[in-house]
Amino acid sequence: MPTLKILTESELRQAVQLNADAIECIESAFAALASGEVVMPPILSMAIEEFNGEVDVKTAYVPGFESFAIKMSPGFFDNPKVGLPSTSGLMVLFAARTGMLEAVLLDNGYLTDIRTAAAGAVAARYLARSDAERVCIVGAGRQSRLQLEALCLVRPIQSAVVWARNHDRGKSAALELSESLGVSVTFGSDLKKAVSSADIVVTTTPSADPLVMADWLCAGQHITSMGSDQAHKNELDPGCFAVVDRYVPDRRSQTEKLGELHHALEAGTASVGFNIPRTRRHCCRQSGESVESDEEITLCDLTGTGVQDTAIATFARMRAEAVSAGIDIEV
Amino acid sequence: MPTLKILTESELRQAVQLNADAIECIESAFAALASGEVVMPPILSMAIEEFNGEVDVKTAYVPGFESFAIKMSPGFFDNPKVGLPSTSGLMVLFAARTGMLEAVLLDNGYLTDIRTAAAGAVAARYLARSDAERVCIVGAGRQSRLQLEALCLVRPIQSAVVWARNHDRGKSAALELSESLGVSVTFGSDLKKAVSSADIVVTTTPSADPLVMADWLCAGQHITSMGSDQAHKNELDPGCFAVVDRYVPDRRSQTEKLGELHHALEAGTASVGFNIPRTRRHCCRQSGESVESDEEITLCDLTGTGVQDTAIATFARMRAEAVSAGIDIEV
Repeated sequence: MPTLKILTESELRQAVQLNADAIECIESAFAALASGEVVMPPILSMAIEEFNGEVDVKTAYVPGFESFAIKMSPGFFDNPKVGLPSTSGLMVLFAARTGMLEAVLLDNGYLTDIRTAAAGAVAARYLARSDAERVCIVGAGRQSRLQLEALCLVRPIQSAVVWARNHDRGKSAALELSESLGVSVTFGSDLKKAVSSADIVVTTTPSADPLVMADWLCAGQHITSMGSDQAHKNELDPGCFAVVDRYVPDRRSQTEKLGELHHALEAGTASVGFNIPRTRRHCCRQSGESVESDEEITLCDLTGTGVQDTAIATFARMRAEAVSAGIDIEV
Repeated sequence: MPTLKILTESELRQAVQLNADAIECIESAFAALASGEVVMPPILSMAIEEFNGEVDVKTAYVPGFESFAIKMSPGFFDNPKVGLPSTSGLMVLFAARTGMLEAVLLDNGYLTDIRTAAAGAVAARYLARSDAERVCIVGAGRQSRLQLEALCLVRPIQSAVVWARNHDRGKSAALELSESLGVSVTFGSDLKKAVSSADIVVTTTPSADPLVMADWLCAGQHITSMGSDQAHKNELDPGCFAVVDRYVPDRRSQTEKLGELHHALEAGTASVGFNIPRTRRHCCRQSGESVESDEEITLCDLTGTGVQDTAIATFARMRAEAVSAGIDIEV
């Protein structure tokens, strides 16, 4: 009889943490995606408006991987009113050669949290200045904490300012992060000031209206926007696209519909064929200006990809198996 | 701690069989879909060409149902060469109000088999003559058996002919069905003859080339085509659309892309606004002809819908809980 491995959230938390290995795992996933050989269909998304809920399903097949994951992510935003988390879900692993079910990862969204934060670290590793030390985190939810933790793994972060619409939540996030990360984290009520004085800005909110304005951005900054993963969500003033020097989407076909690019296309600050680095650098050269890489404003637009899910699920199962974690069920 | 119910295939086989209750369950699902209030996103489909595999993910939210299912169906067509079934998969149930994970149904495709056969029975109940007694089954796989069994539950079936490209498989299917159903089931090598002399024709193959020709169809026949669920699959000569009097898709937006209608639209035998019953019956009335319902040729085009999956998964979980089946896992 074939057996199925069931892994619970606590087992997965022991198997995978936000560290260099997880970042390496997600960096490989992006490299695979860039190779053009990954099969990654559009996200299946279903809204249950009656209960202010939605569920997204993501998947990807990565050639060379023995398994592929299907990830189901419900987000039900009235849940906190009844004492439940807004997001939950699970991942399922199938054999890539036969489609046979191999493992059910009952992570309640934990692996998504880790792979999303790891993607922020990969973005900063390639797009932030190597001496970036001041961070502005927009939002005070779980990802605000994880994104800052992830940045500390790839850049010499000295200080951070957390901004949140709800000041109390912002203050407690700042306090927690100060203690856990050992860097100076303060709450800032002035978002413009917090953004303008940061080397790295990470937006982590579900906002439907822009929070970060174009004229707040400064030379040499890196921005990662990871909050928008639905068409109505929007954290950056579309005008930002007119001032950034380099734009990197996690998946262009997704950011056009679900990410910050979506709103820039609608506002006309980006066009369909839009490819910032080449155009602007070319213009600058023609006009005789010298653009140092350290002066570029870089923007990474993260909507979340199935290839990250296949990568982190495969990695988690391998780690769990190494310590014989999990329940085996005959199926 | 919330608990998760895990149900295995053998438990699900005990909970749900192909019978009047299963048919009733699927009939209610179609009624809900017709009400227009069901939320059913397009199918997520991923091909893994390297291994001749594909995986489909379906879901639907039905207002009034406490849960919704996400169904994952891998189909890997080289599996029989290594002693594995081509199709497998599982269903997962989530609470409709909160998105919290409720149950994992490790059915290996069993519930899909049942709900698909039940859909054939619902089609015949509404579209076949009440005295239909002779059946032609095209194909000799698992669905060929189940579709005939399902028809026996809703019409006074006396005899059936099974046709299959592989004569040995067709003969063994006929023999098995004769024994299990207690009606006369024979193998027929002449498909034209088998189709022309049947009251009900059910096509159940993954064929990419039409098997049933338009000029074989006769007044008063009902055809259910359930094999095509991918764009390249095609069991009916597109000319059939010019002779049928009534066309019923399970989901129009799916049959236009994945079902028999897809090929008729390409061949021009059906048009985009195409709605057979109204047009033809109207024409007939105008020309003074009398069209008896018993003379109509009716066609049901089944591609498989997420609403069927939510319905059968909810039903199976309820039945399993009634006998305290399954394993509970704290998550």
